[in-house]
Amino acid sequence: MFSSIDHAMMLRALELAKRGRFTTAPNPNVGCVIAHGSDIVGEGYHYRAGQPHAEVFALRAAGEKAKGATAYVTLEPCSHFGRTPPCAAALIDAGVARVVCAMVDPNPQVAGRGLKMLRAAGIAVQSGLLEADAEALNPGFIKRMKTGKPYVQLKLAASLDGRTALANGESKWITSPAARADVQRFRAQAGAILSTSATVLADDPSLNIRWEELDETVQQHYPQASLRQPIRVVIDSQNRVTPTHRLIGLPGQTLLARRELGKESWPASVQQLVVPAAEHGRLDLDALMTVLAQQDINHLWVEAGAALAGALLSAGLVDELIVYQAPKLMGSDSRGLIDLQGFTAMTQVPELTIRDVRMVGPDIRISAQIKQAI
Amino acid sequence: MFSSIDHAMMLRALELAKRGRFTTAPNPNVGCVIAHGSDIVGEGYHYRAGQPHAEVFALRAAGEKAKGATAYVTLEPCSHFGRTPPCAAALIDAGVARVVCAMVDPNPQVAGRGLKMLRAAGIAVQSGLLEADAEALNPGFIKRMKTGKPYVQLKLAASLDGRTALANGESKWITSPAARADVQRFRAQAGAILSTSATVLADDPSLNIRWEELDETVQQHYPQASLRQPIRVVIDSQNRVTPTHRLIGLPGQTLLARRELGKESWPASVQQLVVPAAEHGRLDLDALMTVLAQQDINHLWVEAGAALAGALLSAGLVDELIVYQAPKLMGSDSRGLIDLQGFTAMTQVPELTIRDVRMVGPDIRISAQIKQAI
Repeated sequence: MFSSIDHAMMLRALELAKRGRFTTAPNPNVGCVIAHGSDIVGEGYHYRAGQPHAEVFALRAAGEKAKGATAYVTLEPCSHFGRTPPCAAALIDAGVARVVCAMVDPNPQVAGRGLKMLRAAGIAVQSGLLEADAEALNPGFIKRMKTGKPYVQLKLAASLDGRTALANGESKWITSPAARADVQRFRAQAGAILSTSATVLADDPSLNIRWEELDETVQQHYPQASLRQPIRVVIDSQNRVTPTHRLIGLPGQTLLARRELGKESWPASVQQLVVPAAEHGRLDLDALMTVLAQQDINHLWVEAGAALAGALLSAGLVDELIVYQAPKLMGSDSRGLIDLQGFTAMTQVPELTIRDVRMVGPDIRISAQIKQAI
Repeated sequence: MFSSIDHAMMLRALELAKRGRFTTAPNPNVGCVIAHGSDIVGEGYHYRAGQPHAEVFALRAAGEKAKGATAYVTLEPCSHFGRTPPCAAALIDAGVARVVCAMVDPNPQVAGRGLKMLRAAGIAVQSGLLEADAEALNPGFIKRMKTGKPYVQLKLAASLDGRTALANGESKWITSPAARADVQRFRAQAGAILSTSATVLADDPSLNIRWEELDETVQQHYPQASLRQPIRVVIDSQNRVTPTHRLIGLPGQTLLARRELGKESWPASVQQLVVPAAEHGRLDLDALMTVLAQQDINHLWVEAGAALAGALLSAGLVDELIVYQAPKLMGSDSRGLIDLQGFTAMTQVPELTIRDVRMVGPDIRISAQIKQAI
């Protein structure tokens, strides 16, 4: 069904799509190649929300040569007028003869409409080439479209014996500068960073991207002028965050998730979101996720303490763990990684699948996918 | 000083030496190649204590062709009459023209004597080629010769959050069959396996090598007929192990480390070792290590609970950690990995260097070298 040229062209489109990984949020990463056989006549990728889609850049580059060509797109071309006109129409207008997509639109409401529009115009249409690779480009966008919740990556950092701070609270620095630079890269790819008022009150963190701390290879592909700050989301059920906390004044948007609106005077970059409460006055985390998805947050990177980590895991809201392990032993009276309790049989214990394990400087980084909800 | 042919020949000798890794204890792994230029005329390695050394096998294979040849040996040839005549004399008798060693004898009492004997016979002698690789073959033998204590590998197995058993004690099975087969391979390379009476009373373990559980690639290089059982060492300060415990009846030697001799009647394979006590009636672990080294134990593989792990680490007696991490989260009320307490500053915490991290089946295996004593 697909030739080796088709494969090579789609691989190229996937490569192009990745170039947008720091900047397209809340839009998905998409790449497009327009070719006659193995002769590429146009390439493009989506770079930033509000700017043209991948197909438009590729068609512009191809110009008249788009006529009779095959367009390879990592995601089904859109069929609706959003901030840009529909790409399916642009492909039709340009006279392409064939369109190959890696995957259909993950939104079940619109899936297949773009392909239908193309077929109706007499274009040969195929889908499913390198689909898994295309899905891996946009786990957050896909999950939000399918479930109405963001894809949640939980970052944890501990010693080799699974501890995060000494009994007296001391914890600086468990992991290495290399691990912290790696965290910056993960943050930069997320739509939002989630933390808690407990963390804000304890550490007054910035929860932002500091371009100068990004790895050099990332900097090369992500010029400082393009810097996009992920939305900072702080769970603040008791309205403890104040306008004087450091992250409030930083560039980028901040969302305070609260049970009720506070009366403080906030800068325009700060928005209070009212989220229903669950037991013990805590926010309902399931409801919070829905609210965040409604704010177009696809991909949530969580940096918080053991309490939120445990609560998110218990609620079945975590998709992936990113665990940094420092080559240290902090001892059994030190603080644990996750507040999670009450298992009485190994069969109850949450299981994961290790996706990747590697060294980051002197530390270990483990990526693990949650296998079953608790 | 060394040619590329020298390097290639010594690499070959190192490869040969590794073939003895399951069987030579308490002797070191040694390989030997005899060559004229790049033309190998004899090869050998040490396979089992009491059997000939690597040089003897290589000289036998070379026969008359040893005359005028270069002998590459991964360890300085011995100069003393042990269970076999000195290899230095055998090399002289065979008429080799040159001897290249990777390292000198680690025993400071005899280091250099073999080389001296060879030089005195007019043979060209060089040492230090691929020395680090040769040292890596025999960490236990080298440490015992230099310090009078065995090289200690501490095996730990935990969930990703650093826990070894649920609050109620349940712990079967945290790690996978693949990890357990991997443990069999480590055991098989050790001179002895160390555990405690607490473990023996709780689990009645075998602490032996079960050939059928070894990995297939190991089985290919280690025929069942050659099986060597590491010595089982059980810390039993209160004389709680009895002749009816499973490991007592299994093939192989068992040492019971006790404060005083018990009056039980033991089979010939069981020996009681009296070790001085430290505080709280516990055995003095430092003294135990000296006693075990005196029993010719080079390489000790420790499988025990959090208490012994913590005590060995606190006493600065651990050289290497082998940590298996299962992709599970057991929760913060579960049991910790190591009983180690009282750090009040991150500067006090023991640091390690990660030597290797890899997947073993669905689990992660981390090898870490202790960087500084606690």
